[in-house]
Amino acid sequence: MRMYDLIYRKKLGGALSPEEIAFWVKGAADGTVPDEQSAALLMAICWRGMSTEETLALTLAMRDSGKRLDLSSVPGLKVDKHSTGGVGDKTTLILGPIVAACGVPCPMFSGRGLGHTGGTVDKFAAIPGLKVELSEAEFLRSLAETRFANSAQTADIAPADKKLYALRDITATVESIPLITASIMSKKLAGGADALVLDVKCGPTAFMKTLDDATTLAQSMVDVGTAHGMQIRALITRMDAPLGWAIGNALEVMESVEILRGEHGDSELAQMSFRLAAEMLIMGGAANTLPEALAKVQAVLQDGSALATLRRFVALNGGDAEALDDFSRLPQPGQVVEVRAAQDGYIAAIDGRALGILAMDLGAGRRDRDDVLDLGVGIQVQARLGQKVAQGEVLFRVFAKGQQQVTPDLYLAALDWSTTKPVATPWLLGTIGC
Amino acid sequence: MRMYDLIYRKKLGGALSPEEIAFWVKGAADGTVPDEQSAALLMAICWRGMSTEETLALTLAMRDSGKRLDLSSVPGLKVDKHSTGGVGDKTTLILGPIVAACGVPCPMFSGRGLGHTGGTVDKFAAIPGLKVELSEAEFLRSLAETRFANSAQTADIAPADKKLYALRDITATVESIPLITASIMSKKLAGGADALVLDVKCGPTAFMKTLDDATTLAQSMVDVGTAHGMQIRALITRMDAPLGWAIGNALEVMESVEILRGEHGDSELAQMSFRLAAEMLIMGGAANTLPEALAKVQAVLQDGSALATLRRFVALNGGDAEALDDFSRLPQPGQVVEVRAAQDGYIAAIDGRALGILAMDLGAGRRDRDDVLDLGVGIQVQARLGQKVAQGEVLFRVFAKGQQQVTPDLYLAALDWSTTKPVATPWLLGTIGC
Repeated sequence: MRMYDLIYRKKLGGALSPEEIAFWVKGAADGTVPDEQSAALLMAICWRGMSTEETLALTLAMRDSGKRLDLSSVPGLKVDKHSTGGVGDKTTLILGPIVAACGVPCPMFSGRGLGHTGGTVDKFAAIPGLKVELSEAEFLRSLAETRFANSAQTADIAPADKKLYALRDITATVESIPLITASIMSKKLAGGADALVLDVKCGPTAFMKTLDDATTLAQSMVDVGTAHGMQIRALITRMDAPLGWAIGNALEVMESVEILRGEHGDSELAQMSFRLAAEMLIMGGAANTLPEALAKVQAVLQDGSALATLRRFVALNGGDAEALDDFSRLPQPGQVVEVRAAQDGYIAAIDGRALGILAMDLGAGRRDRDDVLDLGVGIQVQARLGQKVAQGEVLFRVFAKGQQQVTPDLYLAALDWSTTKPVATPWLLGTIGC
Repeated sequence: MRMYDLIYRKKLGGALSPEEIAFWVKGAADGTVPDEQSAALLMAICWRGMSTEETLALTLAMRDSGKRLDLSSVPGLKVDKHSTGGVGDKTTLILGPIVAACGVPCPMFSGRGLGHTGGTVDKFAAIPGLKVELSEAEFLRSLAETRFANSAQTADIAPADKKLYALRDITATVESIPLITASIMSKKLAGGADALVLDVKCGPTAFMKTLDDATTLAQSMVDVGTAHGMQIRALITRMDAPLGWAIGNALEVMESVEILRGEHGDSELAQMSFRLAAEMLIMGGAANTLPEALAKVQAVLQDGSALATLRRFVALNGGDAEALDDFSRLPQPGQVVEVRAAQDGYIAAIDGRALGILAMDLGAGRRDRDDVLDLGVGIQVQARLGQKVAQGEVLFRVFAKGQQQVTPDLYLAALDWSTTKPVATPWLLGTIGC
């Protein structure tokens, strides 16, 4: 097998066999295929695309480049969730404990934040003492004892994906539906869950800007999961304004706990978390219909068992569970600066991307992979889409470091105004397989 | 300037500025741009193409990566020729001396053969003692004294093209009209000629298989040359059967000398060489019309001055000029094997590519860049397209090494037969700028 022939065939629009794809992925990971040949093939894939069979083969080859988790010691259908990343997205902290409390094991691997998007690992890291990188034994123990486990992806999961992703990152080949699909699905399949719900974000703040693009990506992932014989469903959800009121790691823990306490139940964040949880419950066999599943979600919120599951998970993994009830034990900001409206009017748009970057600049996120976070900083977004605001009203509370300069105008620039009440748009843009 | 941005823009179909292209080429040559980024950009160029302005910028950046020849010490308009490569193509050996004998300086840089196609440098190397890699001083002296100079391309001409070509070679990005154009034109412009005639080969034995592809490449090169302000013309010529009766280096010298002696004047090879020479004479100011130019060609054949020019060129550069009159002084084969027709019929097709590979296997060509040639071996192709053949007639004479096994069936397999006389097709398929 010659790498040249694979590149040439893909360049002309032909298909690669599973054996050829495995040959490439193995060679890319162990260095026997030079990076320049991988780069050329990656660009040819951006150009010509890949069939579902090819994308599945790429997914499996990347999965098989590293460790695969065996969850069979834990009884029941294991259900995972993946989100393509947004601002203020703390659904994992909410739905994981809910689904587990409903009896469905929920094994989750998460990422760290980069750029304007946050990462679930960083949010969990804001709980003092909580170990966010679990060993296999710790992960399995957590799943067995609390039915919930969350850990940072370890380096031994799909190392070929890491290698190829680093190459894509410098060769402008990140944006490709089959490559994105295989990157996500290889890690999810290595994680060992039986079923997966996808939350594909769509909008100016998300990676996928248009409904067409988001639907294409969601369908591609559903196709690959289905071809592999796993249960898989996707929601396509709007991502423009931040999700919920909190951006920043300790703040997002607080908001998640509030929802698990039963507060803010009609917020978009809560509705989205409940719906994702409901899909997971159906796939996990805990409910047959959406109304039944949503009722189960409400039950574990009202009886406190969802929040209790989160407390048990935190305590089991070295964390300060009391911090979930006493937020003063979470990382705190050096100062809180209020940003007030300079005008009357309706809020027509909130630029989540701009706020995500402002939060990153405060220290809540990473500009570069090696940046160190301040887990106590962030933004409390008081402004709501469509809200009528009077001049002087507080729109943001900026949780900053003590010495940090906060410029209110930068925050106000993230808002668009209208003199009439804007029409509300739904958060759920589409579903696949639900 | 970031290489990532250049790749990303080209991936989306945008244009690169001359400064950006120069940044890339310089970085690719000096190693500051990693090969994987160059490979991704090369594939993106295969995908999205390049405008004439971009292709010219790439041409000039590659030209400027190395030495440029200054021919101004030699009076007159200097005219060069480039062929895209075929089997049995010895037109340079014929038209160079003709054009020079007509008074137009003819500075030529040539390549070595690879695969089924031969190289002019190897053909000249079959003349005993002839130096085929001239220093700049030797090249200029040859041009000044004989009006003809031919040398192997030296390593200091367009080194960025060499670097990028090696990368294209392993990343399946050779086949791209702007990349081929810039590779050829950068070396031609570095060579310093004022005018250029292109012989773009078209057909199953050539790099360009279809008339559309050949025309597109020819037009692209003419566009770039014109945009640079040089005189440039292109012929598109058929390349299926070998050009002339000789394949193999000493044999091709013999056939060239025969034509310069005035023999085989109506053969396709002679007609093509004369027409290319005529276009060069018109661009060089030695003739105004094609009939006038063709008459001048005939004159220097008939008065012997074309062959005399070749003799002077050979003698001046260390070669055995007597070998041009006494072919027994040229490299000889170890054995000659005749291949005879096994049937009656008309010859409907001759597969030049297959014969080129057979000649390569005999030792006349290179499978790998480092192969050492036997300059005396090759194939005398007696069979002519459309010829009526009787069983037992000699179709090929195989000039082989003494110990070599010659399998006649391999040679016969290069022929297609017909029971009726095939319709002759013209060798000239199109012209641009003539």
